[in-house]
Amino acid sequence: MSGNSFGNIFRVTTFGESHGIAIGGIIDGCPAGLKIDLEYIQNELTKRKPGQSRITTQRKEEDEVEFLSGIFEGVTTGTSIGFLIKNNNQKSQDYSHIKDKYRPSHADFTYDAKYGTRDYRGGGRSSARETACRVVGGAIAKQILAHYNITINAYVSQVGDIKLLKHYNQLDLETTYNNPVRCPDKNLADVMFNFIDKTRKEGDTIGGIVSCVIKGTPLGLGDPVFDRLEADLAKAILSINATKGFEFGSGFDSVTKKGSEHNDEFFIENDTVKTKTNNSGGIQGGISNGEDIYFNVAFKPVATIMQKQNTVNTNFEEVTIDGKGRHDPCVLPRATIIVESMAAITLVDHLLRNRTSIL
Amino acid sequence: MSGNSFGNIFRVTTFGESHGIAIGGIIDGCPAGLKIDLEYIQNELTKRKPGQSRITTQRKEEDEVEFLSGIFEGVTTGTSIGFLIKNNNQKSQDYSHIKDKYRPSHADFTYDAKYGTRDYRGGGRSSARETACRVVGGAIAKQILAHYNITINAYVSQVGDIKLLKHYNQLDLETTYNNPVRCPDKNLADVMFNFIDKTRKEGDTIGGIVSCVIKGTPLGLGDPVFDRLEADLAKAILSINATKGFEFGSGFDSVTKKGSEHNDEFFIENDTVKTKTNNSGGIQGGISNGEDIYFNVAFKPVATIMQKQNTVNTNFEEVTIDGKGRHDPCVLPRATIIVESMAAITLVDHLLRNRTSIL
Amino acid sequence: MSGNSFGNIFRVTTFGESHGIAIGGIIDGCPAGLKIDLEYIQNELTKRKPGQSRITTQRKEEDEVEFLSGIFEGVTTGTSIGFLIKNNNQKSQDYSHIKDKYRPSHADFTYDAKYGTRDYRGGGRSSARETACRVVGGAIAKQILAHYNITINAYVSQVGDIKLLKHYNQLDLETTYNNPVRCPDKNLADVMFNFIDKTRKEGDTIGGIVSCVIKGTPLGLGDPVFDRLEADLAKAILSINATKGFEFGSGFDSVTKKGSEHNDEFFIENDTVKTKTNNSGGIQGGISNGEDIYFNVAFKPVATIMQKQNTVNTNFEEVTIDGKGRHDPCVLPRATIIVESMAAITLVDHLLRNRTSIL
Amino acid sequence: MSGNSFGNIFRVTTFGESHGIAIGGIIDGCPAGLKIDLEYIQNELTKRKPGQSRITTQRKEEDEVEFLSGIFEGVTTGTSIGFLIKNNNQKSQDYSHIKDKYRPSHADFTYDAKYGTRDYRGGGRSSARETACRVVGGAIAKQILAHYNITINAYVSQVGDIKLLKHYNQLDLETTYNNPVRCPDKNLADVMFNFIDKTRKEGDTIGGIVSCVIKGTPLGLGDPVFDRLEADLAKAILSINATKGFEFGSGFDSVTKKGSEHNDEFFIENDTVKTKTNNSGGIQGGISNGEDIYFNVAFKPVATIMQKQNTVNTNFEEVTIDGKGRHDPCVLPRATIIVESMAAITLVDHLLRNRTSIL
Repeated sequence: MSGNSFGNIFRVTTFGESHGIAIGGIIDGCPAGLKIDLEYIQNELTKRKPGQSRITTQRKEEDEVEFLSGIFEGVTTGTSIGFLIKNNNQKSQDYSHIKDKYRPSHADFTYDAKYGTRDYRGGGRSSARETACRVVGGAIAKQILAHYNITINAYVSQVGDIKLLKHYNQLDLETTYNNPVRCPDKNLADVMFNFIDKTRKEGDTIGGIVSCVIKGTPLGLGDPVFDRLEADLAKAILSINATKGFEFGSGFDSVTKKGSEHNDEFFIENDTVKTKTNNSGGIQGGISNGEDIYFNVAFKPVATIMQKQNTVNTNFEEVTIDGKGRHDPCVLPRATIIVESMAAITLVDHLLRNRTSIL
Repeated sequence: MSGNSFGNIFRVTTFGESHGIAIGGIIDGCPAGLKIDLEYIQNELTKRKPGQSRITTQRKEEDEVEFLSGIFEGVTTGTSIGFLIKNNNQKSQDYSHIKDKYRPSHADFTYDAKYGTRDYRGGGRSSARETACRVVGGAIAKQILAHYNITINAYVSQVGDIKLLKHYNQLDLETTYNNPVRCPDKNLADVMFNFIDKTRKEGDTIGGIVSCVIKGTPLGLGDPVFDRLEADLAKAILSINATKGFEFGSGFDSVTKKGSEHNDEFFIENDTVKTKTNNSGGIQGGISNGEDIYFNVAFKPVATIMQKQNTVNTNFEEVTIDGKGRHDPCVLPRATIIVESMAAITLVDHLLRNRTSIL
Repeated sequence: MSGNSFGNIFRVTTFGESHGIAIGGIIDGCPAGLKIDLEYIQNELTKRKPGQSRITTQRKEEDEVEFLSGIFEGVTTGTSIGFLIKNNNQKSQDYSHIKDKYRPSHADFTYDAKYGTRDYRGGGRSSARETACRVVGGAIAKQILAHYNITINAYVSQVGDIKLLKHYNQLDLETTYNNPVRCPDKNLADVMFNFIDKTRKEGDTIGGIVSCVIKGTPLGLGDPVFDRLEADLAKAILSINATKGFEFGSGFDSVTKKGSEHNDEFFIENDTVKTKTNNSGGIQGGISNGEDIYFNVAFKPVATIMQKQNTVNTNFEEVTIDGKGRHDPCVLPRATIIVESMAAITLVDHLLRNRTSIL
Repeated sequence: MSGNSFGNIFRVTTFGESHGIAIGGIIDGCPAGLKIDLEYIQNELTKRKPGQSRITTQRKEEDEVEFLSGIFEGVTTGTSIGFLIKNNNQKSQDYSHIKDKYRPSHADFTYDAKYGTRDYRGGGRSSARETACRVVGGAIAKQILAHYNITINAYVSQVGDIKLLKHYNQLDLETTYNNPVRCPDKNLADVMFNFIDKTRKEGDTIGGIVSCVIKGTPLGLGDPVFDRLEADLAKAILSINATKGFEFGSGFDSVTKKGSEHNDEFFIENDTVKTKTNNSGGIQGGISNGEDIYFNVAFKPVATIMQKQNTVNTNFEEVTIDGKGRHDPCVLPRATIIVESMAAITLVDHLLRNRTSIL
């Protein structure tokens, strides 16, 4: 009820502030008997880790996950999986200058307003550091999805005005993580990299779009009415820091379309019902139809900039604030793995919920 | 868990197929002592009612709501509010031609795949008729919001390529329901009307955008991490039939912005913290900051068109299907009230959840 | 969150006051493809119906259930099942004398204290009339359990000091509903009947015990830690009006036992693990072990008596109150079916939750 | 959904096996601004700690709790509180002899049956060690209750046939923890101590009853119908290891009572509505009426005895098993604090849920 849990059957609950002792969480509802690849999980975490190139923050977070329960001799026991990631590299003094000032477009002001108190060292609970726990949950979810041959690939498709125009089928999504931008088009990735780096040097930040493709989803996931698969995906994705929009299938482009051009006609291929086009984005009436699920996510520019800004302090006086600390000029390169993780958690939850026959 | 409920404390659970005896629901968690204006609720339902002009379906649904419990002598008792809306005008024979055929971009196929059975008369549970129950829940939610001076106004801001370019502050949102299109710009409403009507005559359908503005939200609504206010709004909105995308505040436009131009600087006005711009859309770190909340919703063109289409039947044979029955050429005019209702339910739920002090 | 729902996956939500238009509910999460025997459901309701003999209240409630959705051509569709039972025979004038007085050991005072308002005609939401909706839910749950060969039999094992000493294996539980007391020992049932009738003539009421036996539960139902099967059964049962205690297996008798006499030793029979004794009551570590589940429920004497009592009124003045209206001298005969229903709902919920393998 | 969480708004989720690296949990929904007394929490844990006298297990668990988040400068921030307790003293070799044997009346068999796997070192998740986490949650809950002047006192009222006959008002409940039995009657505590010690020397174990009294509960806690306060307390209590029964107020004694003697007549004292007797146990219609809440809990004898027993092994062969390891001859002395903790968590959850007015 306080919004620190996600999922119904497969449920991830997280805790931890960016500058506390540790962050961590509990994964509940993971089926028993799942062989866990710890190296895979650590590898997923590394994709989110800061400090990987000069276009991400230079903070050195080790992000080493320790599992405390629920896994015995390398296999899940069906009980709750507790884990933690220690905060080794927090530099609390970096934040002392903003203890009494509300950073523009950050959560400092709303947290104080809601709770009357706040851990002012960094963003506390609103820091993107929390998302490392989602990556742990997602990495376990992905290992369940692997048993169903479901794959999830997110990638950066736009940074500022630089837009990847190719359809995802024209891209090799296995190469996404080969470059620091996480754009599977190598040439465009270079352009994006230079643009982000230039923005960084200007002390500024920039937004962009992460696209995501889910292949292999079986027929029948998602529930009617409120818990439609796209609705739950939307919630999952928009719970990620800095997101501003979500569209699936034809998305916002559909609004200018006629029904006669937008409808996905059915046909038969190998005794299976397929659609000729996939404007539905793999979901019809809230339920997966077996086609690819794909969606786009808008990310705003990072709020922390290396420039002087006007703001107010906790005494409600107008002041200015300087940019300081180690921050990302663009959140996109580190966001793809978070998008994948939240999508994976959502899918596993619906897989485990999907019991519609009597026996 | 089967997705027929929405909300945590203020919770709406619905039932009913489009061609069964009745649809209805239970509103749980409504505080006691709320004076209920039944005429207001009926009036809200009328805004959703089909058959109001020639650009909406000519089905005559009375949509008269009967309350069965939870209201005593005109005031809520704090107990669960049961209600129903009888289905008086269903014409089951209209649908006999599609009993064995899967309509393109409808839920027929996915429902059969998920449940192995389905009420083939109309869309059953996936019919937009279900949304009448959401309007009942929303109409009660709005009466709670009125005690907080919170107002919610949705309107049609785009139909096909016809786009309303004015900012919502330049519009008189009280006039939205004065025309059948539900666009508060009278002149543009006429253009939209003619375009929808032309589309209807061609046996086709068209998509569009509904915009929504929420004014008066107190500081502090929304929870950190997963149950951010925008995430719950996104889920609420994308659980509405025919939606394809959701963006709030600066939305997808933010992706091309620099942090220095996108950040909302704080200032003081009448001892209150305000933001100079509102790219945040009234929500920072998942929590309302007191500014206007606003968002856009993409709706696809209605799937039922009056044209022959290729599809498959329940025996997995390729067949054609004719357009028949009474349907909307554009879902937008009837969707505004549903958007408002889901937003209202979401806000009331967060209002009632928002208890952060010890006593 | 307002306590009108029970169950996680198989979830029953109810509404309705005793003297409103109707009571009813929504059953969510019922699997698709279940053939529904409507006569069976009505027959279960009849077991709870008042006015069946002179030891139950002489109110004539028809208790005819109408299903409004979720069942198509006699089979569940997997969507939410809405139903209602009209209140045809409420005599609101019977209650006018207690509009302003708090009946001792009733919920009048606590409802007013909690909600500041209440439907004073009868017990409103706290009336046992609400339990008719649980019987509807239970009757559908039992039809699911029948596919698993799980049977649930509750019976009256004690009324006042009159106690049935036989073990349930010595009784023919199929005969329970053959007599108005619902005690499967015909001779003792007669003694109980006469005692209840004598109590009734004295204008008084009497308590008793309902015992319940569940046979055929598969291994593995129930979750560790908080959602133990016995914990969920306890909650289900103690949510029934007038209950005061719950014990399962050896129950309160276990407190004087040594471990060496109380432990249930395992042995093998037909390649199956069995226990020699069943002090565990079929549940070990919160999880069913395949043996019979059995438990006892204490019911207090009905609070409404036909005698003058001291109490206070809504102005906080001390007054006397007369006994009036049509009430049960003993709740037990009508309670057995409610106990069975709540146990059935709990078991089906755990059956549907019990998914522990990956695929 | 996997039963590792308790509570709706104030929610405790736990993880950890008895012989893993650590146990721990997340407390979600704790209001902000609560000053946390860490010493108090540690002191509560010490009450549960084994090895405190020769009638409890001689295992040396330090049970030192570390808080990882949610508390900043000694005050709760309103965000999720993560904590862990390291397992320092597990002796896994103690359990090797039972790796392949199912201990009678333990959860070994049902866990294997449910999950197909299990951490065989000790009881794993079903070990009472898990309850240390509940004590942490309860100790925080009690600090919230202190702001409402609500007190909870549990004590041992029966061990085997030795029964404390005094009413709780005749006892000084503040002295309960002054003796190792946790019985507030010093003389009877000595008798109980000797009896438990004698039982221990015989290699046997014994059951008993814990009684609990809650004073100061405000009017209006508890919800109607399913989430009655007594139903939620029953679930909370019966989720504790080794419990077999729960009764509140007059409990099982009420079954022989007439309504005329059992009803609690109302009267006025200091402008407050009071009841002359309190058979209701402080709860009427599921809602607290301001009187003392009191209940009894039956605990069975501990299953691990120091005697040879018949059982079966994981190959489904009949074998014998020896008693070994360090175990409690009677669970009661360590159970009182767990009962208090679960009651405290339940009450705080209902306190925070109890919002029935519009504004």
